Amino acid sequence: MTWAPVPFGSPFSMANLPFGVVRPRGSDDRASRVVVRIGDHVLDLAAAGIEPELTTRSTLNALMASERGDAIRARAADVLQGRERGDWLWPVADVEVLLPVAVGDYVDFYSSLDHATNLGRILRPNDEPLLPNWRQLPVGYHGRAGTVAASGTPVTRPDGLVAGPDGIGRLQPTAALDFELEVGFFVGGPRAARIAPDDADRHIFGAVLLNDWSARDIQSFEYQPLGPNVAKSFITSISPWVVTMDALRPFLVESPVQEPAPDPYLWMQRPWGLDLALQVDLNGHTLAATNFDRMYWTFAQQLAHTTVNGATTGAGDLFGSGTVSGPTPTERGSMIELTWRGANPIHLADGSTRSFLHDRDTVTMRGFFGEHAGARTDRVGFGDLTGTVIGSDLTHSSTGKDRDAALSS
Amino acid sequence: MTWAPVPFGSPFSMANLPFGVVRPRGSDDRASRVVVRIGDHVLDLAAAGIEPELTTRSTLNALMASERGDAIRARAADVLQGRERGDWLWPVADVEVLLPVAVGDYVDFYSSLDHATNLGRILRPNDEPLLPNWRQLPVGYHGRAGTVAASGTPVTRPDGLVAGPDGIGRLQPTAALDFELEVGFFVGGPRAARIAPDDADRHIFGAVLLNDWSARDIQSFEYQPLGPNVAKSFITSISPWVVTMDALRPFLVESPVQEPAPDPYLWMQRPWGLDLALQVDLNGHTLAATNFDRMYWTFAQQLAHTTVNGATTGAGDLFGSGTVSGPTPTERGSMIELTWRGANPIHLADGSTRSFLHDRDTVTMRGFFGEHAGARTDRVGFGDLTGTVIGSDLTHSSTGKDRDAALSS
Repeated sequence: MTWAPVPFGSPFSMANLPFGVVRPRGSDDRASRVVVRIGDHVLDLAAAGIEPELTTRSTLNALMASERGDAIRARAADVLQGRERGDWLWPVADVEVLLPVAVGDYVDFYSSLDHATNLGRILRPNDEPLLPNWRQLPVGYHGRAGTVAASGTPVTRPDGLVAGPDGIGRLQPTAALDFELEVGFFVGGPRAARIAPDDADRHIFGAVLLNDWSARDIQSFEYQPLGPNVAKSFITSISPWVVTMDALRPFLVESPVQEPAPDPYLWMQRPWGLDLALQVDLNGHTLAATNFDRMYWTFAQQLAHTTVNGATTGAGDLFGSGTVSGPTPTERGSMIELTWRGANPIHLADGSTRSFLHDRDTVTMRGFFGEHAGARTDRVGFGDLTGTVIGSDLTHSSTGKDRDAALSS
Repeated sequence: MTWAPVPFGSPFSMANLPFGVVRPRGSDDRASRVVVRIGDHVLDLAAAGIEPELTTRSTLNALMASERGDAIRARAADVLQGRERGDWLWPVADVEVLLPVAVGDYVDFYSSLDHATNLGRILRPNDEPLLPNWRQLPVGYHGRAGTVAASGTPVTRPDGLVAGPDGIGRLQPTAALDFELEVGFFVGGPRAARIAPDDADRHIFGAVLLNDWSARDIQSFEYQPLGPNVAKSFITSISPWVVTMDALRPFLVESPVQEPAPDPYLWMQRPWGLDLALQVDLNGHTLAATNFDRMYWTFAQQLAHTTVNGATTGAGDLFGSGTVSGPTPTERGSMIELTWRGANPIHLADGSTRSFLHDRDTVTMRGFFGEHAGARTDRVGFGDLTGTVIGSDLTHSSTGKDRDAALSS
């Protein structure tokens, strides 16, 4: 038991204690501190005397590189359960919650069988939905690390070339702005290569929710032959509380059987799936809910694949799981799947419809570990990952709203 | 004139004065210093009293972000032309030359018309060689920043999945290891978005040679639909002397006319091509020589394209030009083009042949600005970018050498 107040149902119970970075509202970066979240408060680790050389920092990177994370989290737990109650807790409402990590390399994957199958059916309706390599390796690409942003950062509708009926691309705000419901995994420790899947817990520091915002019309024009670029590089949002490997370890479960078996460098003896219930809301209306336990490729395999060629990975690197979708229509983790690229627009409670996102729409993602086990008082989750769409700087007629107006007329 | 010795023909004349980072041999990272190269020596800027807060550093990043680069380089020139001769010059042979920049985001392009046409003909012989988007936008993808390494770093032959005749990928050392002759551009200054092409010189700090090492067999299995990943992420080599925008400004020339004209956000009023003679050698045998002035898309347009969607770029970000090839067979900047994917192996002077690179092969790239103007005493160039291939950790039979032995038997 802790003396800190923890509201019932909070994802930030004593079983969680995720790391983050905050500063007092209105202060500058020098006032930033590494904290642990508990309920609706944060514990100032440096003030509590816990490794100030690693916690008087504006990012988690030094702590992640140090391999001292478990020990620091254990000391935070001791403080929160101890007799002494110093002036170390701040209400989270009184601080700015910052991007917790200076992201190194960001690799985004495509590891949900249901998502990849849906996309294949939508984009290549006359072909096999999965390409021949999909069941043999975790397909992924490098994304833009410098535009990873914390929850709450506004999402400016991106401009890019969209092909007209004549095949000519013209610069315009995307009319097909989408979200992608994902989980992100941060690397810790020294740089390493050729990591075996079963060593993943020695190299993964912790997890966050991740929204891989995407512009589908820009993407379809640009992506051949080198993959997505400006269709996804404008922003990637993450939840600001990094749930550590120690906290998520109780929720590791078997991942789906892989048939055919992949090459031996991707074999796992230990369970690397995660029992993690995920949900995405649009303006407070739940669009989809699914569980991460169905992901075909695990983060352990993604780590092994990324380093099999001798490439190193190190503290601050980020892996995106790829969009998490399940087998039923209410488990789809992106608008393009939910509306089948606009063929079946979503009807919201306010009477409006959506093919893709409109300006002023707010997307909120949530994730709780172990919800299969029923309601818990020691919940472990990420808290909300939110983003609100704001208009493009270009004054141009082709927006998502106009498209839906055209569809409904 | 300078009192520092500058050998005739050196690319590091007073007209160049590129920045780099060195440390005395055998010392640790705390002894690293930002220097300017002159002839076969380096000038220790901090020892000469030039902005030690920016030059007593192990990377150029702070200097690049500061926008003080031009002023610091001008002060270095003053010192090298002044009456006072302190103990500020070290022979470059006495220092370790380090990776000069902690690379932020690395975006690699595909901007040579001849290279893209060659690749299209090789990989899709029955189709139009250029895809419909190629003349409308500078196609590019994000590469791995954490494996960018300085010239001289050994290149371990990467392992990855290579498809057999049955379509099944099996882990093996690449049998198709290739180089790509490129130029890299580093960003300086504060983070910025929506940069117009004609503002490129306010945001580009300087240039290096870049070798985008590639494993063609791994790439062909993995790259659909999200682009290359582990086929290119194992290492990217750069020359260690960053030639500043001020030094390369005299060599800016008109780039080729673009037909059809691209969207207006890519229009240029100023010349952003570069008169830069490039050459690539294999074990001392020149394989190809061309000029950067034929590149279809300029670095100014690559910068504009990367930021048109609102994405920011900042100090330490790196843009790769894409492989530089010219229209004739001796101007091809990669083995896959030079040997037409192994159909026409190269015969070296020692009697051996190459489809792709063998273990112990050394690739050397060189680049000199303004060679169209004839021999110069005030040469500006990059110096050598070299890398030697070493064997994979896997003991496996399928290497480039075996492949060529099979071809010649």
